[in-house]
Amino acid sequence: MQITVLKYGGTSVGSAERIREVARKVALRYQEGESLAVIVSAMAGETDRLIGLSGQVSGFPDLRELDVLLASGEQVSAALLALALKDLGVPARSFLAFQLPIVTDDNHSLALVQHIEVYALKRHLQERKVAVVAGFQGLTVGGDITTLGRGGSDTTAVALSAAIQADSCEIFTDVNGVYTCDPNIYPRARKLEQISYDEMMELAVLGARVLHPRCVELAKKYNVTIRVRSSFNDGPGTQVSEEREQMEGALISGVTYSKGEARISVFGVPDRPGIAFRIFNSLAMESINVDMIIQNVGRGNLTDLTFTVPVADLDRAVKRVEQVAREIEAEGVLTDRDIAKVSIVGAGMKSHPGVASRMFGALAREGINIIMISTSEIKISCIIETRYTELAVRVLHDEFALERDGE
Amino acid sequence: MQITVLKYGGTSVGSAERIREVARKVALRYQEGESLAVIVSAMAGETDRLIGLSGQVSGFPDLRELDVLLASGEQVSAALLALALKDLGVPARSFLAFQLPIVTDDNHSLALVQHIEVYALKRHLQERKVAVVAGFQGLTVGGDITTLGRGGSDTTAVALSAAIQADSCEIFTDVNGVYTCDPNIYPRARKLEQISYDEMMELAVLGARVLHPRCVELAKKYNVTIRVRSSFNDGPGTQVSEEREQMEGALISGVTYSKGEARISVFGVPDRPGIAFRIFNSLAMESINVDMIIQNVGRGNLTDLTFTVPVADLDRAVKRVEQVAREIEAEGVLTDRDIAKVSIVGAGMKSHPGVASRMFGALAREGINIIMISTSEIKISCIIETRYTELAVRVLHDEFALERDGE
Repeated sequence: MQITVLKYGGTSVGSAERIREVARKVALRYQEGESLAVIVSAMAGETDRLIGLSGQVSGFPDLRELDVLLASGEQVSAALLALALKDLGVPARSFLAFQLPIVTDDNHSLALVQHIEVYALKRHLQERKVAVVAGFQGLTVGGDITTLGRGGSDTTAVALSAAIQADSCEIFTDVNGVYTCDPNIYPRARKLEQISYDEMMELAVLGARVLHPRCVELAKKYNVTIRVRSSFNDGPGTQVSEEREQMEGALISGVTYSKGEARISVFGVPDRPGIAFRIFNSLAMESINVDMIIQNVGRGNLTDLTFTVPVADLDRAVKRVEQVAREIEAEGVLTDRDIAKVSIVGAGMKSHPGVASRMFGALAREGINIIMISTSEIKISCIIETRYTELAVRVLHDEFALERDGE
Repeated sequence: MQITVLKYGGTSVGSAERIREVARKVALRYQEGESLAVIVSAMAGETDRLIGLSGQVSGFPDLRELDVLLASGEQVSAALLALALKDLGVPARSFLAFQLPIVTDDNHSLALVQHIEVYALKRHLQERKVAVVAGFQGLTVGGDITTLGRGGSDTTAVALSAAIQADSCEIFTDVNGVYTCDPNIYPRARKLEQISYDEMMELAVLGARVLHPRCVELAKKYNVTIRVRSSFNDGPGTQVSEEREQMEGALISGVTYSKGEARISVFGVPDRPGIAFRIFNSLAMESINVDMIIQNVGRGNLTDLTFTVPVADLDRAVKRVEQVAREIEAEGVLTDRDIAKVSIVGAGMKSHPGVASRMFGALAREGINIIMISTSEIKISCIIETRYTELAVRVLHDEFALERDGE
């Protein structure tokens, strides 16, 4: 039996009208003979409404109960889609996490999927019926409801695809697929037909909001081919799968940017072992992620330490860093919110040296100063001044000729 | 361990503010040492909102999926109350039907409770923790979600009280208790301290909306003492329990009325065996409840048949009755929506003859014509013209001196 997993996000099921539209599409594919398991998110806005309610009854909501609360959102949309399908004469039923079950650990609000029991689901599909599965939710072995955190329904779709050995996993969103850069910034952005797991993961981490990095990681681990498609048209979207083997692969797959970071500099730090540990440990204790780190060459026995943190965590981070700075008798702390990160991502750069220098050269020609740099095997990120963000994206898109298919 | 079951309805948990108010009351009782299981309904308006959504995606909603949809309402309020309790430092957790489980048959939307597994709940209470239980919902042995129909959360409260052998079951509503008549109609209405199961059941069937007849029936079966109380004050409310044994019990406990019925008359019916069966069977096939029935003495071999049905079912009923009337060659069908039912209820009338004639006399003195009469062991109902409803209630309340405690 060939099984297809479809996943519709909150916007796609955001109203009764939208749910009926999704039902019509699913019905059409059902009538063409496909075996379908459909994962749904909560209706757009519902999760925020529930979080708002929890905040009105509790200062620091208990995570176990918050999960019970939030899981109701996917329960509602799963039931509504099943109702809409039955209304079209399609035999369908909803499956909640506890009914399969989708077993997770007990890390409430960020639970990890451990096992999905697919026996009942498979039997249901074998009877030529459509399964509508509530995304985002899980069940501990102790019988508690959990949720999977951000991108949870995508994770449900990929994990279920792996468990049931689906032939394809289609994730429907409000964009046509994965682009070489944000089309709102540069109309010459091109939709990619295919992208590798690693590239997609870097793009996701770096700010492209199409898929959550965690679901891409899971897809890679279990070799689940994802197709990112629009729920508003019938375009083929973008396939996320193993690295394609091409004679002449594209050097760069995409240019991405993020304005969500801020920079902290600690000046005149005594150049002793253990100092960096004290600073970064104090941030780790606050669960603040540090991204890029630069340590300048010392002046005598003093050095400067610069790093970036999410702008949302800046105030908390500065408080901690200033405290440590006093303790270690550093000269001072400065911050800068006026920065952006521009990155190029491409599996091709693994086998092509010189990509970094081309990137730096292209930015330099436009007079864009690079404040910090970080690299991985398949991406190069530069911190620049915020005002140059869009210019930098366009320049890099042109430099690597992304409007054509590679070089 | 003395266990108290509390049940809060939709109005009592209708907003975040109300939920916090309920949490404060529960917290106070918890701190005084009580072992508490709290049943909650969906927030006021939520069930209607969900039914509205189901109607927008489906013409005739599938009952299995409708149950999945509606059960989310109680899930939300149970989670919110548990959150609010934890915020007050009270150890609490929510229990959904599937987590106990509350086992029902698979009659979706009107499921009957078969068994409640209370082991986990009891252990929870023994650990000095508060249990918040989602009302209205159940689980089939096959693992499907069910709902219990109207008054479902009251039923959950009573069934759970029986299963866990609770010492008391307090049902909180938006009124102070059970009254001798509707206080909005007659300010001399008096709150009853106590009422028997049978009387409460008659009052509930006859239109008093305080408790659903089904939950009273269950309470009687398992001898669960219910206390109906207001969630807005600390009054003692009304106790519903076995008939009290008093030297001089009250003759009548209450006067109630209902404007929800309509009358259908079939004229010139051939007086043959099987005719009444054909008429009432055709209505039973449509699941229309017939209340009172009168068959007049025949004129020759013709008779007249008059009966009442819920006004909401009148149009469907008339369609069926007119069809049968044609088949049996009756002379005609007439309907009347302009009727009301006024009833007196009291266990005391079992041992006191003459109550009916006092009722008829009191109505006659005010010039109120009685159209139909029906009686049971503990109630007498009269159909009258709608415009006399309030007058009739006041007259009967005075006749049986209900503002004082009996005669």
